[in-house]
This record gives sequence, C-alpha cells and structure tokens, in this order.
Amino acid sequence: MTRPASRRDDPSFITVPVPLGDRAYDILVGRGVVETAGSRIASLGARAAAIVTDEHVGPLYAAPLAGALEAQGLRASVITLPPGEATKSYANLEQVCDAVLAARIERGDLVVALGGGVIGDLAGFAAAVVRRGVRFVQVPTTLLSQVDSSVGGKTGINSRHGKNLVGAFHQPSLVLADTALLDTLPLREMRAGYAEVAKYGLIDDERFFAWCEANWQSIFAGGPERDEAVAQSCRAKAAVVVRDEHENGDRALLNLGHTFGHALERITRYDSARLVHGEGVAIGLCLAFRFSAALGLCPEKDAERVEAHLSAAGLPTRLSHVPGGCGTVDALLDAMAQDKKVKGGALTFILARGIGQSFIAPGIGADKVRSFLDSELEPSRS
Amino acid sequence: MTRPASRRDDPSFITVPVPLGDRAYDILVGRGVVETAGSRIASLGARAAAIVTDEHVGPLYAAPLAGALEAQGLRASVITLPPGEATKSYANLEQVCDAVLAARIERGDLVVALGGGVIGDLAGFAAAVVRRGVRFVQVPTTLLSQVDSSVGGKTGINSRHGKNLVGAFHQPSLVLADTALLDTLPLREMRAGYAEVAKYGLIDDERFFAWCEANWQSIFAGGPERDEAVAQSCRAKAAVVVRDEHENGDRALLNLGHTFGHALERITRYDSARLVHGEGVAIGLCLAFRFSAALGLCPEKDAERVEAHLSAAGLPTRLSHVPGGCGTVDALLDAMAQDKKVKGGALTFILARGIGQSFIAPGIGADKVRSFLDSELEPSRS
Repeated sequence: MTRPASRRDDPSFITVPVPLGDRAYDILVGRGVVETAGSRIASLGARAAAIVTDEHVGPLYAAPLAGALEAQGLRASVITLPPGEATKSYANLEQVCDAVLAARIERGDLVVALGGGVIGDLAGFAAAVVRRGVRFVQVPTTLLSQVDSSVGGKTGINSRHGKNLVGAFHQPSLVLADTALLDTLPLREMRAGYAEVAKYGLIDDERFFAWCEANWQSIFAGGPERDEAVAQSCRAKAAVVVRDEHENGDRALLNLGHTFGHALERITRYDSARLVHGEGVAIGLCLAFRFSAALGLCPEKDAERVEAHLSAAGLPTRLSHVPGGCGTVDALLDAMAQDKKVKGGALTFILARGIGQSFIAPGIGADKVRSFLDSELEPSRS
Repeated sequence: MTRPASRRDDPSFITVPVPLGDRAYDILVGRGVVETAGSRIASLGARAAAIVTDEHVGPLYAAPLAGALEAQGLRASVITLPPGEATKSYANLEQVCDAVLAARIERGDLVVALGGGVIGDLAGFAAAVVRRGVRFVQVPTTLLSQVDSSVGGKTGINSRHGKNLVGAFHQPSLVLADTALLDTLPLREMRAGYAEVAKYGLIDDERFFAWCEANWQSIFAGGPERDEAVAQSCRAKAAVVVRDEHENGDRALLNLGHTFGHALERITRYDSARLVHGEGVAIGLCLAFRFSAALGLCPEKDAERVEAHLSAAGLPTRLSHVPGGCGTVDALLDAMAQDKKVKGGALTFILARGIGQSFIAPGIGADKVRSFLDSELEPSRS
C-alpha cells in the first residue's frame, strides 16, 4: 500500500471478468495487487469497510489495508478471528455479524475478507446476511482461496452434520488475488492449493493440465507462471459458475475429486495435522480417475498420469497416504453418503473419460463403489 | 386435513399470484385452506418436509399437518420452538438448521413454517441458508403474518443491535393463509394484525381504506370480508414486492408507520406485555400522518381520519398510549437512527399527501422530527 500510483494500472496484472449480469465482478491477479487495494475498493463507492481477518494474516496485512482505505476516505475497522477450520462456526458467524453491525456497516458499505478460505467463507456469509446482504470484497491470501473459494460466491459455515452445510450464494464485488502473498505460504499449503489448480485441467482442459505438468515448479517458485496458473484457474471456475451459479447442473463438475476428498476429511475429523482439504482433493482426484478406469470409462494410463503429476508435486495420491489410516470401506461409504451433493438418496460422482473429459455421473450404485474401494484398500495397492 | 377432496378446489379460496419470474408463487387465502395442505405441499415435488412451529401452534396443528404430508408420501418431521420474539435468535437459528439437517432435508425438499411471524421469519431464514437454500412453505397462523411477514420473502433473526438485522431475501414456494385459524386468535393479536391491513389502504389505496372503515367489524368477526381483507393485503404487498424485491426503492413504502413503530418497540425493549409490533405500527401510522400534516404536506382531516379508524378498531394511536411511557424525544430520535433503513446516515420517512398517497421522503432533518415529537409529547395532545 506504499507503492506509487503508477503501479495501480500495472499491465502485469491480469483481469478475469466474472460476467454474472447485475452481479458481475472482476478478479485481479498479480504480484502487488493488494498494494492497490485502497483505491480499488474505494472505487466501489462505499463509505465504510469492515475487514475480517485471522490471527495469522491480520498482523501482517490488516493495518496497512485499513490505512489505505482510510486514506481514500472510508471508515475502516478490523475484526480478527482465530485461524483454522473450526472458525467456520455458528458462534463466529454471530460474532462477525454483530461486529459488522457494531462497525455501522450499512447497505452500500463493504465487508472485506482478508485471509484464506475459512475467512472468505465466513466473512462472505456474514456479508450475505447482515441487513439481508451487504457487498463484500475477497482478498484471498492462500493459493487454495485464490483459485477456488474466493471465486463463485459460495459462502458458509460448518454444521455438526458436515462442512459448509449452512451458507449462502453471495457473489463478491471484487476479488484481489495477490500472488506475491504466496511467497511466504508454507509449502504444504502451497501444494494443497495446487491440487485445485491441477483439477481445472482434469475437468475439461487437457492442454492446461499438460502446461501444469511442464510448469508446476515455476508456479511454486513464484515465476510469471504462478500468475497465469491462478488466472487460468479463476477463468475456468468463472466459466462454470456463469453457466450454473446455483449448482443445479454443470457446477457439480467443480466437485471432481471432492466426493472422495470430503469423505476423507470427514473420516480424519477435519484434523489438519492429518489431512487438509487440498490433500483430500489430491487423493480424491486420483481415486476419481482410477474409479473411472475401473468402470472401463477411462484409459488406465490417464489415471496413472494424474497420479504421477500430483505425486511429483508432493501431494498424497492414495488412501494409504492418509496419516493414521482412512478406516474401513463401510466408514468411507457412510462418510460419502453424508455429502450435501446427495440428491434423492443416490450418490453422484464426477467421473472422467480421460484427462480433461470429466462428466457428472448420478446414481452410481453403492456396490460398484464398494468393490472399487475394496481394491484400493488391498495392501498390494499401497 | 380430514375434509373431502372436493374441498381442495373450493371456489371460495382466493389465489393471489406473486409473479416473481423463476421465484413466482401463489398465496392461497380462505377458510379451510390448511386442510388441503397435504396435497398442495406434496404437489411441489419434495420427498421430505421439516415442519417448524412453536409451542402454541404446534400442539394444535403440527401433527395433523405432518400426517397429511405423510399420507401424500412425504417424510415429515416437526421442530417445535418456544413462542415469542426472543425465539428469533442466533441460537435458535443454529437449532433449526441442525434439526433440518438431522431430518435429512436435501436440496429439493421443504421447510414448512407453521406459525406467526416469528416462526415464518426464523424458519424461512433457516431454509435460506441450509445447504445454501432449500425451498419453504409458509402456513401463517396469525393475521399479522398472513397479511405481512409471510409475503415477500423477507426472513431473519434479531441481533443485539436491532430487530431483523441478520437475514435473507428468500421467497417461499407457496403460502397457505387459512383465515379460519384466526377465529381463536386473541383479540389483541387480531387488532395488531389489522394495523397492517389498514396500512395498505393508507399507502396507495384510499378506496380500500374506506372499505376497511365500513367492514372492519366483519373482518374481525370472520365473515367473507376477512378473506377479502387478507387477499387484498397480500395483493397490495405482492405488487410492491414485484416492483422492488430487494428493497432498493418502492418497497420502502411498506414501512409506512414503521420508522416510528420500530423506535417504540426498541424503547419498550420488545416487551410484548407493553407493545406488540402491530400496536407500534398503529401509533406509527398516526404519527406519520400527523407528521405529514405538521409539515404541511397532508390535510389535518386525513390524519384525524386515520386516528379515528384505528382507535375505533381498538388500537393505540398516540405516544401517550404506550404503557410505561415512551421516553424522551432524544431517546426516540436515537432509537430511530438505529433503524436499518438508515442509508448514508440520513433518516428516511414514509410520509403522505393524504390517505392512499404515501411517498418516500429521504433526508428528513432531525430538527423537524424533534419539534414534531416535542409537540406530540406535550400533555395537551394525550
């Protein structure tokens, strides 16, 4: 927030538009984007902004951001929460809503989510419901949130019945994805976010997956390929969201790898020491391709290629990679049945006919899933 | 729910359509409508329904409604909450959301709000956020909820910063307003609901107000005029909601009487022993017309006519009618400034040029409000 004004129109920033009619917004991607946040957020026309952040990110970035907003004439306040998935609770929703109201955020004002996916989901949900909806801006600070949760308007908290079971579709008014913030991201979090990047190639863009295979080391190292990977991921997600904002159809494709992944997160009780979301997704992507191969839908070599790449990037790829184990087949099936993507009682999977050729497969019989998981849990596979 | 099927197409039911595009729905008004609820709700195509009700209404109607739904092949469950405004809390939102999830309500299933405005607002909000939105049906059991809160999609709970400050716009899929349920409604609640009926005439329909003056006793007694009054109120509200679903403009007209009314509710700490919402609105309507007259906008005789009619119907009409008093002018001004309809710091009132000629008046100076309230609090006016 101390750079000269000329940086504000830095041509190296990439703009990804999300054309959702009267809810359209831009995602700005690039090194140093957050330093231009003051004027960009001010240009949305609010009089006040409540910044929601956590105890990791807040001490680094909240005060400069608040200062930059105040320099633009906005009233700014900061709400700081504990880090971690447990923060997405009813109690913290109440705390954030009441703090936003105490900050006298009116209709037309803004909530700014400054942090990873937990902060974005919680602050976005609070913005969706305070005064029945105020605007919000996402400033995602992790790779995972930059390429996934900050785009598309899904917000929410966890219930004792499962993750993200209570929430709202509420689109942000602006997303600022500063790729320089990832320079200090722990490697494990970088890898976890990368699983979602690779996912976009696996869904419907074999070329992008091949590009990832060739460039993943530069993405991790912070070269210009990182900006392009984030931007392309946002473009891919935006394209799906524009087709199906409220997840009545195509948007389910984004759940490639997630039916298995969520089940693993549930079984490990969301204990990030054992498994973080992106790691569950990495294993889930490999399982989805191997399941597709087992069903005769997808060439074995494509499933092997998925595993080889994620493994090269340092991600887990098999059930046996879950520290502490992943329980029995029955436990896995039970955990999958609780996913909120269940409709009419039948399990829906995202399967693939090959890399970049995923499709929604509703009504997959439990017997087929069971025999696949049995084979995955055989010692010979691990 | 025991009537013969022929009753299901009873021509005496009045259908009020709410044409909101892909969120369009019907309001059915009439004596015995709730007895046809099973087949009507089943026709929405859900597999399960969670009925949310309170300890007053539940024992009378929840079991028959659940039975009627089960007879139509739906899985039905009942969630019962304490009655009263305090139920619209974060804690009860959590309770209802978790109970709806425990009842395995999936996307495509239904929440049914069976009760007055408190239940409708809370259950509707839970439906808006469980799985980021499931459908819901309103079965309003009070006059107030039949003519006001069940129509238009406003849902929410109260914050320590004020009423309805946390919520969502979420339209029901069907509203069943059974006017026979009002036969056993306490007179005070009937009167409170009637204040909102009269309001629709005052907003933009002088003929309806005159009809109310001529027919209010039949409305209270349960004649066919009651059905017509409920239906006409719903039509009037629906017309405004269709023009401005998210309250960016015209919908504010529905707040006629409410800026004053909400302030009185806040000052009496939502203590229903002292003042219920409709009583606050009745006083607020009289104040809005007298304020309009004091500003030279509206003939004195129209303000007198409003007061004469509401007084005849047994409603309070003056600040001095608030049991325990309404505090000082400063306290009233302060309470008004906290209303969520504040925008950009300025007070917005709904004023009138006469009966049926209300309009939105933004930016009313505090000095004018103060001198009007001073005159209202003079002993000679009480």
